[in-house]
Amino acid sequence: MKSTEDRILLAHGSGGRLSHELVQKSLVPSWSNPVLNRLDDAAVFKLSGRLAFTTDSYVVSPIFFPGGDIGKLSICGTVNDLAMCGAQPLYFSVALIIEEGFRLAELERIVTSIKEATEEAGVEIVTGDTKVVPRGSADKLFINTAGVGLIPEGVDISGSNARPGDKILLSGTIGEHGLAVMSQRESLEFKIPIQSDCAPLNKLVVDMLAASPEIHCLRDPTRGGLATTLNELATQSKVGMRIDEENIPLQEAVRATCELLGFDPLYVANEGKLVAILPPTDAERVLNQMRQNCYGREGAIIGEVVEQHPGRVVMRTRLGTSRLIDMLSGDLLPRIC
Amino acid sequence: MKSTEDRILLAHGSGGRLSHELVQKSLVPSWSNPVLNRLDDAAVFKLSGRLAFTTDSYVVSPIFFPGGDIGKLSICGTVNDLAMCGAQPLYFSVALIIEEGFRLAELERIVTSIKEATEEAGVEIVTGDTKVVPRGSADKLFINTAGVGLIPEGVDISGSNARPGDKILLSGTIGEHGLAVMSQRESLEFKIPIQSDCAPLNKLVVDMLAASPEIHCLRDPTRGGLATTLNELATQSKVGMRIDEENIPLQEAVRATCELLGFDPLYVANEGKLVAILPPTDAERVLNQMRQNCYGREGAIIGEVVEQHPGRVVMRTRLGTSRLIDMLSGDLLPRIC
Repeated sequence: MKSTEDRILLAHGSGGRLSHELVQKSLVPSWSNPVLNRLDDAAVFKLSGRLAFTTDSYVVSPIFFPGGDIGKLSICGTVNDLAMCGAQPLYFSVALIIEEGFRLAELERIVTSIKEATEEAGVEIVTGDTKVVPRGSADKLFINTAGVGLIPEGVDISGSNARPGDKILLSGTIGEHGLAVMSQRESLEFKIPIQSDCAPLNKLVVDMLAASPEIHCLRDPTRGGLATTLNELATQSKVGMRIDEENIPLQEAVRATCELLGFDPLYVANEGKLVAILPPTDAERVLNQMRQNCYGREGAIIGEVVEQHPGRVVMRTRLGTSRLIDMLSGDLLPRIC
Repeated sequence: MKSTEDRILLAHGSGGRLSHELVQKSLVPSWSNPVLNRLDDAAVFKLSGRLAFTTDSYVVSPIFFPGGDIGKLSICGTVNDLAMCGAQPLYFSVALIIEEGFRLAELERIVTSIKEATEEAGVEIVTGDTKVVPRGSADKLFINTAGVGLIPEGVDISGSNARPGDKILLSGTIGEHGLAVMSQRESLEFKIPIQSDCAPLNKLVVDMLAASPEIHCLRDPTRGGLATTLNELATQSKVGMRIDEENIPLQEAVRATCELLGFDPLYVANEGKLVAILPPTDAERVLNQMRQNCYGREGAIIGEVVEQHPGRVVMRTRLGTSRLIDMLSGDLLPRIC
């Protein structure tokens, strides 16, 4: 029988001695900073101005996938939610729900991924929580992160700010994250050369805002894909949108896999892409700046905001026809993030 | 066969149409406020000063128990973590991980509990997230909350601030939450007249700070109970502690149930109690103020901080002997919060 010492026990979540050891040996040293290290009930820091605050739980399955894992995802996803308000992400919480029996070696890999992602994004983990539930009461590991950021003066980004005439920019190719995760599901029998695009986009947003502070909307097309994100923005801003299929960047492997499986890449999740909506006068300048950043190299102008058909998104297909692009209904791929 | 319409489906977590309907029909109307209602990727608000930031995931089983439910707990627990830094809790996130098949009627009860707890504590839910996992991948419902609060000028509370000579105050009777939850476990065959003490303590803390801004430490003895909390504070502050068993408030039903089951109430979780450590000159004044508040009526001075045996807690028992009170080791009652 294998030793239980390399696995998470219920007592690791009891709040007692093993909980303290787990936190102090496995978590705090890797994420160390003066605010976290105080280990009080809450983190304390000084901050003044317009703050952005967001949270997401990550339940992706499997927890390791090409291009990332649940740890990297849990930082990048929340960094991106803050960046989509134009905020500089600063302080993060990380809360783990671990299934009894989870391997400590896997936890260590994920703790390291989290550390690397925070370093790339320039954020600090300042508070956290660990719960352990009995075997069968959760699937391996769920992570919640919440983040606090600061919005620079003069930035006013919201999903309700799109105006007719604005251009719609997309920072790169779509559909990789969803397919990369799906390709690892146990039931799937083929392997595809697709990596998740999981990445922190806050520095790309800083670059774009330097090129034009007049960016009206930013959003990352995660669950529900590009189609759902554009519908959300059209609804919130009470405008219509027209996009061109031939301008939407797409990797050949993604196109082929979607065709094979009957998926529409417009509905497949991304974790390292953003949609930006801004005045036409600034569009080329922002696009050029975007393309200088490693996460925006394949950026493109994919369409524009119109007065007609408010709340609806229409796509001109490669065949020249028009197609109404609805929000995702049903669930294409569960547990993608 | 029962209709699936009154249950949570995987598609409620897809990010698509059903997710939007769930958020806009079942969550936002109940928790409505101008910041939340914008529904951008992050909440935006102005705030300046020393902020406190904390998170906890709640995995309590069962999700309904005498005196509360997972919703009330998820607000009170995080309110209390902020209050234990002396902060005024302000802005909250709520992230749900729901098992496919969960009843919408139960979700509604919990959403209402959350609303009532936020109203009592005076906090606002400004951002959130909903994930759905397939049946068997989680146990009914897990909730994560994170909270942001503001620390008033002149308040400096930390687990490392206890000084020899300080008095140790406890706001009331111990052990109710743990026993109340345990009494609902399916395997248990008896019922006990014990309700969870689950409550928001932020207003009690405001009252106590009004009586003395010199409070050195505050902590709520949750997982691991009073014994573990005192050990944490003794370790963080590098001091010893002496407490008197006969001064620790205890309900007769809790005493009897613990005796029957072989539990030590010092290790049983509380969700509406706090420990305060402060200079002896202010102890009676703070105690009197505490007793005016409905959550501090049975407050008591239970011991003092000493120079000797740093990091250790010693209790004088009712029999007059001395007993070393260690931190909880192992897990007394899993999934208590």
